[in-house]
Amino acid sequence: MTNDLFLRACRRQPVERTPVWIMRQAGRYLPEYRAVRARHDFLTMCKTPAIAAEVTIQPVDIIGVDAAILFSDILVVPEAMGMQLTMVESRGPRLDPPVRSADDVHALREVDPEKGLRFVMDAIAEARRGLNGRVPLIGFAGSPWTLASYMIEGGGSKEFKNIKRMMLDEPELLTKLLELLTVNIRRYCEAQIAAGVQAIQIFDTWGGILDPGHYRKFSLDPMFEIVSRMQKGDAPVIVFSKGASHALGEIAAIGADVVGLDWTVDIGAARSTTGEGVALQGNLDPSFLYASPENIRKEVMSILRRFGPGPGHIFNLGHGILPDVPVASAIAMVRSVHEESPAFHR
Amino acid sequence: MTNDLFLRACRRQPVERTPVWIMRQAGRYLPEYRAVRARHDFLTMCKTPAIAAEVTIQPVDIIGVDAAILFSDILVVPEAMGMQLTMVESRGPRLDPPVRSADDVHALREVDPEKGLRFVMDAIAEARRGLNGRVPLIGFAGSPWTLASYMIEGGGSKEFKNIKRMMLDEPELLTKLLELLTVNIRRYCEAQIAAGVQAIQIFDTWGGILDPGHYRKFSLDPMFEIVSRMQKGDAPVIVFSKGASHALGEIAAIGADVVGLDWTVDIGAARSTTGEGVALQGNLDPSFLYASPENIRKEVMSILRRFGPGPGHIFNLGHGILPDVPVASAIAMVRSVHEESPAFHR
Repeated sequence: MTNDLFLRACRRQPVERTPVWIMRQAGRYLPEYRAVRARHDFLTMCKTPAIAAEVTIQPVDIIGVDAAILFSDILVVPEAMGMQLTMVESRGPRLDPPVRSADDVHALREVDPEKGLRFVMDAIAEARRGLNGRVPLIGFAGSPWTLASYMIEGGGSKEFKNIKRMMLDEPELLTKLLELLTVNIRRYCEAQIAAGVQAIQIFDTWGGILDPGHYRKFSLDPMFEIVSRMQKGDAPVIVFSKGASHALGEIAAIGADVVGLDWTVDIGAARSTTGEGVALQGNLDPSFLYASPENIRKEVMSILRRFGPGPGHIFNLGHGILPDVPVASAIAMVRSVHEESPAFHR
Repeated sequence: MTNDLFLRACRRQPVERTPVWIMRQAGRYLPEYRAVRARHDFLTMCKTPAIAAEVTIQPVDIIGVDAAILFSDILVVPEAMGMQLTMVESRGPRLDPPVRSADDVHALREVDPEKGLRFVMDAIAEARRGLNGRVPLIGFAGSPWTLASYMIEGGGSKEFKNIKRMMLDEPELLTKLLELLTVNIRRYCEAQIAAGVQAIQIFDTWGGILDPGHYRKFSLDPMFEIVSRMQKGDAPVIVFSKGASHALGEIAAIGADVVGLDWTVDIGAARSTTGEGVALQGNLDPSFLYASPENIRKEVMSILRRFGPGPGHIFNLGHGILPDVPVASAIAMVRSVHEESPAFHR
């Protein structure tokens, strides 16, 4: 591989500079992405390997990131389990009908990802061919708790009324759903690795809506099941629980290679908490990309300084890049990391 | 005063049972509130002392809380500073025109709360008369950072694009706005105390959108200015920074009597962090009020147990009560606290 900085950083091996990629880097802020999106709807893009591979590679060429992440969506798993997935323009995803009863859970399928998610495996193969060893390719999946949230609420949510009611009033039913998701997600990650991804990120987007006790039981424990049983070869696993800064030490302890940080965490304090066993990924506030390039550089420097010298840092935003950020600002961030970080690796 | 449990708990004095009130307890979940609201718009209710006092007292009678909080809105302060405030049904508040330039900041007024916010002082006097010493009356204000967010964004926001851009690119301008707000908010709190409120809560609703470094400078420091200079007599001050669990020790250190906790914090861990100098308020997940009364009781017990024995706990939700919660569930929470907490105060 031409540039394996990302994989070395995941393994806490020495690097010449800190690698950087951006969550949602294949996305709407790029005119080249919007040009493709104008011709195809979002799910068609996910399900057409040549298109998914094309937009996966775009940010490597355009903004110079050190890793590609497969263009896809976490909700293709609930779809493969039998739910109807629709993307409603400017209103987000819908999953129908919402999972509310024992019958609803019973109706969901175990997924054979080689068949039910074949298009993902084909997109991975195509993206690997297109990348041609330039940078590693990251695969991903939603966490069981996060997918369960979408499935039970029937889409995005603000209050998470239904899953929280189920969690307190019917915990066995929720546990049953989480167990099914845990198996499906583990197999899905294993299939992605077999198809060619060189690292896996588990997006626990909604772990942070829980108090620490329920987080541990309903979000962290299922992720532990996945990470500890996954046939992962030498692919590092990144676990990103947005908003769960109370649990960084516990996330490090489930066997993740890398702990993702949102921007509300001091990365220096997080390094003290998680210790020497894991790498850290993050964590610039995504809204800081609305500032000037000079001030973006200052904030990049601030994070590099707080992490401090030595290996084990993958630079990223603390959440996905926002759709109306100027491309020049994303480039300013990537360049700042490339230019300022070598000083921390001498 | 007939029931001064709340004030004693704020001062960490012994109590027979843990007091409880609910953020947004005077609100839409109550049919009695909706009946008043059907006849008047929201701001008219805030500005008509007899109406504000009536809905302030409703939850004391209906759900049996141990404190009343004045019915008002944090945005009456920016309005008194010269902005146009409108409440857009189901879309939230608007402040026009948004504050974006030095001229915009310059145009804002210092507020004499006795004049510009007379209706608040009159509502306080009326509510005190109506309460007739049954429970204490809490006044409140938004934090400088939180009010600045609304003023710069022109209303609610998801990404806080404009204030974050100003924070990085024009920090002196933001500081100037925060300084003006700090003075206005301190005077407003002092005027409320002079008018009869027996405690003050500062709502830092948006402190949690910041990384710890910027939080300290732009949210915590202005609150320190307010709390340390406030002529507060013997009125306890509660500081609630939603989402800023990284800073609980620092909030305790600015001189607050009580630190408010959102539900993502373990209240036992928070007690260890903040030490013996402050009381804690919180912190049931507001969405847990969608569960059955039996399970609400279990979760109340869980929080009482984690706080543990001894004084210094005011029970509350971890954020405002949601508008579609059944009244019976709010009552179940209050009763559970009343019935289960005496065991922790023997």
